[in-house]
Amino acid sequence: MAHLGHVELLTPRPEDSLRCFVDVLGLREVHRSADSVYLRGESEYERYGLKLTAAPCAGIGHLGLRTTAARALERRVAALQQAGVAGAWIEGEFGHGPAFRFTAPQGHAIELYWETERQTQEPGEPPLPRDRLGRRGGPGVATRRLDHVNLLAADVSPARDFAWRHLGLSLYDELREDDGSTSAAWLSAGQRPLELVYTRDRSGSSGRLHHVAFWVDTREEVLRAADIFIDRGVPIEVPPAQHTIGRSFFLYGFEPGGNRIEVTTGADLVLDPDPPTRIWTAAERRRGIGWGTVFPPSWHDYGTPDND
Amino acid sequence: MAHLGHVELLTPRPEDSLRCFVDVLGLREVHRSADSVYLRGESEYERYGLKLTAAPCAGIGHLGLRTTAARALERRVAALQQAGVAGAWIEGEFGHGPAFRFTAPQGHAIELYWETERQTQEPGEPPLPRDRLGRRGGPGVATRRLDHVNLLAADVSPARDFAWRHLGLSLYDELREDDGSTSAAWLSAGQRPLELVYTRDRSGSSGRLHHVAFWVDTREEVLRAADIFIDRGVPIEVPPAQHTIGRSFFLYGFEPGGNRIEVTTGADLVLDPDPPTRIWTAAERRRGIGWGTVFPPSWHDYGTPDND
Amino acid sequence: MAHLGHVELLTPRPEDSLRCFVDVLGLREVHRSADSVYLRGESEYERYGLKLTAAPCAGIGHLGLRTTAARALERRVAALQQAGVAGAWIEGEFGHGPAFRFTAPQGHAIELYWETERQTQEPGEPPLPRDRLGRRGGPGVATRRLDHVNLLAADVSPARDFAWRHLGLSLYDELREDDGSTSAAWLSAGQRPLELVYTRDRSGSSGRLHHVAFWVDTREEVLRAADIFIDRGVPIEVPPAQHTIGRSFFLYGFEPGGNRIEVTTGADLVLDPDPPTRIWTAAERRRGIGWGTVFPPSWHDYGTPDND
Amino acid sequence: MAHLGHVELLTPRPEDSLRCFVDVLGLREVHRSADSVYLRGESEYERYGLKLTAAPCAGIGHLGLRTTAARALERRVAALQQAGVAGAWIEGEFGHGPAFRFTAPQGHAIELYWETERQTQEPGEPPLPRDRLGRRGGPGVATRRLDHVNLLAADVSPARDFAWRHLGLSLYDELREDDGSTSAAWLSAGQRPLELVYTRDRSGSSGRLHHVAFWVDTREEVLRAADIFIDRGVPIEVPPAQHTIGRSFFLYGFEPGGNRIEVTTGADLVLDPDPPTRIWTAAERRRGIGWGTVFPPSWHDYGTPDND
Repeated sequence: MAHLGHVELLTPRPEDSLRCFVDVLGLREVHRSADSVYLRGESEYERYGLKLTAAPCAGIGHLGLRTTAARALERRVAALQQAGVAGAWIEGEFGHGPAFRFTAPQGHAIELYWETERQTQEPGEPPLPRDRLGRRGGPGVATRRLDHVNLLAADVSPARDFAWRHLGLSLYDELREDDGSTSAAWLSAGQRPLELVYTRDRSGSSGRLHHVAFWVDTREEVLRAADIFIDRGVPIEVPPAQHTIGRSFFLYGFEPGGNRIEVTTGADLVLDPDPPTRIWTAAERRRGIGWGTVFPPSWHDYGTPDND
Repeated sequence: MAHLGHVELLTPRPEDSLRCFVDVLGLREVHRSADSVYLRGESEYERYGLKLTAAPCAGIGHLGLRTTAARALERRVAALQQAGVAGAWIEGEFGHGPAFRFTAPQGHAIELYWETERQTQEPGEPPLPRDRLGRRGGPGVATRRLDHVNLLAADVSPARDFAWRHLGLSLYDELREDDGSTSAAWLSAGQRPLELVYTRDRSGSSGRLHHVAFWVDTREEVLRAADIFIDRGVPIEVPPAQHTIGRSFFLYGFEPGGNRIEVTTGADLVLDPDPPTRIWTAAERRRGIGWGTVFPPSWHDYGTPDND
Repeated sequence: MAHLGHVELLTPRPEDSLRCFVDVLGLREVHRSADSVYLRGESEYERYGLKLTAAPCAGIGHLGLRTTAARALERRVAALQQAGVAGAWIEGEFGHGPAFRFTAPQGHAIELYWETERQTQEPGEPPLPRDRLGRRGGPGVATRRLDHVNLLAADVSPARDFAWRHLGLSLYDELREDDGSTSAAWLSAGQRPLELVYTRDRSGSSGRLHHVAFWVDTREEVLRAADIFIDRGVPIEVPPAQHTIGRSFFLYGFEPGGNRIEVTTGADLVLDPDPPTRIWTAAERRRGIGWGTVFPPSWHDYGTPDND
Repeated sequence: MAHLGHVELLTPRPEDSLRCFVDVLGLREVHRSADSVYLRGESEYERYGLKLTAAPCAGIGHLGLRTTAARALERRVAALQQAGVAGAWIEGEFGHGPAFRFTAPQGHAIELYWETERQTQEPGEPPLPRDRLGRRGGPGVATRRLDHVNLLAADVSPARDFAWRHLGLSLYDELREDDGSTSAAWLSAGQRPLELVYTRDRSGSSGRLHHVAFWVDTREEVLRAADIFIDRGVPIEVPPAQHTIGRSFFLYGFEPGGNRIEVTTGADLVLDPDPPTRIWTAAERRRGIGWGTVFPPSWHDYGTPDND
């Protein structure tokens, strides 16, 4: 697999969500269909990283993973079908070619695709350097791209195994509870330490979303994001701080539709091509997150759709 | 004197200049009169720091200094008049009370005033904390306030002496040439190391402007300003770097009217109430500016109005 | 009054405290006497901002305020004596001239002084610019100077009034409880929004310290300080976040002697020479601190010496 | 190929170079042999990223590339031998297993290896999180790891083709002169946009080094590095600024042995698994580098060993 390509977020307040992603998160609208708006960060090479879809409840519609080649897509799909995974080919979606869509073990829809439309430069003056796709200085956070998605799973182990065996993702970190069960797994298709994360859903539900994360360049931009959230009325759930695992710097808040969003930067790259998975104990985790930041109960319990 | 209150910039391209100050520098428009637009940074407690006035040539219209009290204004004006300085009271200007306007030795118009109108909060949701005047996250640079103004003077010494004796400013730094003459003087009414700077005008002209500087909070914001300048077509004259004197971090560019503008941060406060003036030699200056940044010839020669 | 000049901290673990201030906070040792070590930040113009003294209990020994002139010192002392404040002249202290020491209403020792010894440059190669006193790049945080001191007072009002009337400090912000009593007061001698803060001591004790704060240049340096605290074993009480009042960025921790220390930056300057005091309500305060950061109970209860 | 693993720098002033890399660049010494010292950045998973070797002249000794697997190493070596590349197996080097060393077309020694020794945590208190290898807060720049190496080649094209065909690196960017010749090529084994760069050697020499680059986390840390360079006497060649190609933020200086070093951060990751190579024209390059930073002639002419 090459990388996480896009996430479809569902929102019961599509207009408010759109305003938040454009005016506060700084994303650009690139396309609209009947129920969806397609949005991108300044430097995404594909047409979009976020598809925002009107729906009765918040949550994740699907996530898209791009393969490393056309044949890699064929092989993955063949293997999935051989393993009894039911799925179907989707044609005609905006921005990319045929995609094989299926439901992963814990109830999340995943698409695999190879063909993609590459983004061209935003027009205007002055001309941008050849490798720039967007123009800086608009309103909101300087979001560069979709970074990762964190799904909730009643049982993390089968979700992790599926991602590892059938999607070919690397398992860089894992959280093991005192009873030996796995409560979180950090997976990636490349050198970034996380692209797909599974966390235990304490409610036992399936198919829920914990959060979608967007990348900015610096810790200072995450702080600026917090200032902007506060002044623009986007609720902050966890103010800027540093994760223990991966040392990434973060900010969590809620977009108007109810989905949790993260602004993140700074995670170490994994250059080792064959690193041993780090197994974190619950005791280590209890010792505190990064600088000792206290996470509110909501962070451990809330997901979308909201069960309450 | 309390502090530099505002600067009036003249521009032959008023609409373009306004767009630059609003969309790129991030200032807010607060008022319009026939030929002028009044603009403020996010946290200025007065109504504006910049008055932008349509005029045939670029340059500085005047600068305004606020006194520490009503009686201080009276005393200053009495002393100026006693010293033979011709001036006149201005009434009815937007945003502040009666001002005594006169022309300082090297041809720049200066206003002294005491009464001022205080800015109230920008409306909107959510309510801002009691001490915030603006809302963050709009387009452009996060400019907090006018910082200082740098004037050109054919002869720096009398300008410096006037500012020191008649305006009561402190002389924190001075640049002495090999022939013993003073080629630059850094003056301030308060703890900031510079509010009014005089630099030798090599062309021998009088009344010209070198630059007006705007304050941002962090060096990272100055870097972001450079990114925004580049992508929005504002010419950069000197990319972000650090001054030797005062260690401030800067970026110089030109607004469409032709006036040089600086984005700056980080200068050390002067806590010492009676510091000896630092006399810098031309040799020290030649040793390089800050990190060794090379300033282009324009920086030493160009001012507004442009003599060419 | 010109500014807060120095603070004397008492520590029952002088060697460990010294190591923390030098290796983690990045201060320089400039002098030693029998029980005390004198320390300075990179850019303090006086010889020291912190005097660290071995003592049975943690707490504040005294704080020193520099006056604006020799005659100002005489006048202040005369006024204090006339008001019945008992005090005595201290001679021969390292780094400054004669000081008048007295005990302020809520039990804190304060010194007023005018004469001071100015710091000269750290020797070494290459030569530093004329206005630099220290060399950057040593271990620990890049602390520039002492910033402010926060005292605990069983009754804030008389302490505030004394500081305002007898020390000539400006009262920029005040926190008013629902019963109309004042629970915190932010005072300053200059344009910085706070140099001396009084907060209500819920234990009813007198003479205790809440914290001493040190200034760094950027929010990024505060984040770096948190990283360094964590890796060097300095307990973090409140991870980096933003205050509501004054918008300063902070980190709180404990030095080995038990005193709370703050690393801070970014507070807005007060340019208005005569600003109305901002009266904050308890309701406003309850609405959350800055980005909604949760302060632990210790922050509201703990001071030095520790009553437990 | 997995990634660039280490670079061996030659220095005629080994003690001074070592002091610079440790005290200014913030690297840690991990091992010594007769003529060499092995150094690492805080978060390198292998034992070292820099081998510093005493030699009559400055320059590059060799660079090491780690393969993605044991069999990948075998296949690469077999292919090289089949292509007529003379080389030899090196055994017993500190920190990694058997390496196949050969000379690439333009005269640079390259090693390929698979087996490597993983770095364990620095000891001490408090215990570090499981994924941290070093402790922050020591002197100098917070260097995280070796980032890339830039070699000089009389003829860039054959060097580029060799790296692409025989080492399996991706060619992300290329600079084409007006005469159609290639004057620079940016290659990488992974998602970072550059790990190995070839630039035309105008002197026509072979085997020379342009620079070695070290990674820090933030632009602010690059600025801090410039401050530290200045205060510690490390000559700055190009002050902090932004590259056009890749948008990375940089600082160039010279270590005492004469080798050019870069401190860098911020380059965009290349997520596209099959991106078209960007061909930059000399005209685009002439338009200016990033923010318009002027590079001194030395940057275009100087390499190590120095031909003069």
